Amino acid sequence: MNNKQLASALPETDRTRHRRLREQGSLDRAQLDAILETGFICHFGVVIDGIPMVVPTVYGNDGRYLYFHGSVASRSLVASPKAAVCVTVTHVDGLVLARSVFEHGVNYRSAMIYGVPRLVTDAEEKLAGLRCLTEHATPGQWDYARQPNRKELAATALLALSLEEASVKIRTGGPDDGDGPDAALGIWAGVLPLTATWGEPDADPLLPDGIEPPHHILARSNTRAG
Amino acid sequence: MNNKQLASALPETDRTRHRRLREQGSLDRAQLDAILETGFICHFGVVIDGIPMVVPTVYGNDGRYLYFHGSVASRSLVASPKAAVCVTVTHVDGLVLARSVFEHGVNYRSAMIYGVPRLVTDAEEKLAGLRCLTEHATPGQWDYARQPNRKELAATALLALSLEEASVKIRTGGPDDGDGPDAALGIWAGVLPLTATWGEPDADPLLPDGIEPPHHILARSNTRAG
Repeated sequence: MNNKQLASALPETDRTRHRRLREQGSLDRAQLDAILETGFICHFGVVIDGIPMVVPTVYGNDGRYLYFHGSVASRSLVASPKAAVCVTVTHVDGLVLARSVFEHGVNYRSAMIYGVPRLVTDAEEKLAGLRCLTEHATPGQWDYARQPNRKELAATALLALSLEEASVKIRTGGPDDGDGPDAALGIWAGVLPLTATWGEPDADPLLPDGIEPPHHILARSNTRAG
Repeated sequence: MNNKQLASALPETDRTRHRRLREQGSLDRAQLDAILETGFICHFGVVIDGIPMVVPTVYGNDGRYLYFHGSVASRSLVASPKAAVCVTVTHVDGLVLARSVFEHGVNYRSAMIYGVPRLVTDAEEKLAGLRCLTEHATPGQWDYARQPNRKELAATALLALSLEEASVKIRTGGPDDGDGPDAALGIWAGVLPLTATWGEPDADPLLPDGIEPPHHILARSNTRAG
């Protein structure tokens, strides 16, 4: 991806364009992979009848493609194989509390992937994509739970979106007004961190006694999720 | 839906009608307010040159409008006063682990707001909107930190999006296959909860000794954020 693509991929927020690109924009593949690996929910943007629609949905990631699934009757999935989409994955790490309101901000890691997704029709590829999606969101469950049967597979649409056109924006660290005139105001400044954590497994009330959560679920409890 | 519920219901339009998963869809105003009140980051979807763009950004909410701010040079903000947007706020509450892969899912609360935002140009309204936005994300900071000066106000664009056309989707509770044939498989099923929590304030390294975090920041630590 060249600079022209970078410029067209990054949204503009505060500050000047050059400063933004230097400080927050990145095309580092390792950063993209880390953001995608950490999350499992994206915001899937698609245009339907000229109107944008932004839908939170689960994704899988095999390093070449993002995978999305849904009912074959889904409006957003049915529309998207014909149209460009923008898929955004965001982790919010904290509030940046500056001396001035103007310098307030958010620490975050965000990836945006652009492209025209492909409806996966090959049976083997579809099964592999669904496995990837399940294992990405809930590692260990594909082999532990009952895998989809023919009827369930037929009711499920799977989309693949190439990771070729992607960009990353990251903000880390404290506020930017610590060495300016506002530093003399005596106002506290810093970051209020935000962390997502997995809790303890909460068993289905309908579960019979004696069925314990498997290790791959228990091991996730009390670990950081974002 | 009975008459009592209709009184607090959001108007149903073609876009906000829940065609699928009706049990998850809602037009209840109180649920919308609760979702918007809890969060401070949305995914702002806008169409630029026919391509959807989904940008994570901070929002404010005064019960009538959502507010968004950015640089006056921002492409997504400049484009959007002329164009329809979809703004989505999502809280992820946990993974739903079913007996079958097909019934796996996510517990979440999500609001989608559709409309054409308005660029706020009136000075008084702009200041009130920026105050709303700041106080929504970081309560207490508008009066504590230095408020924007004329130059900073001129560099900031503020958009207002009416809450008139909005819909809510919520999933709660355990998996749906506890009373079907898969219940006999002996597979553990339930929910792995996910919680976002505010941490301890992390002071800017450039902060002089003796400036302590204000009460409104300290009080937020170790509370739930989502």
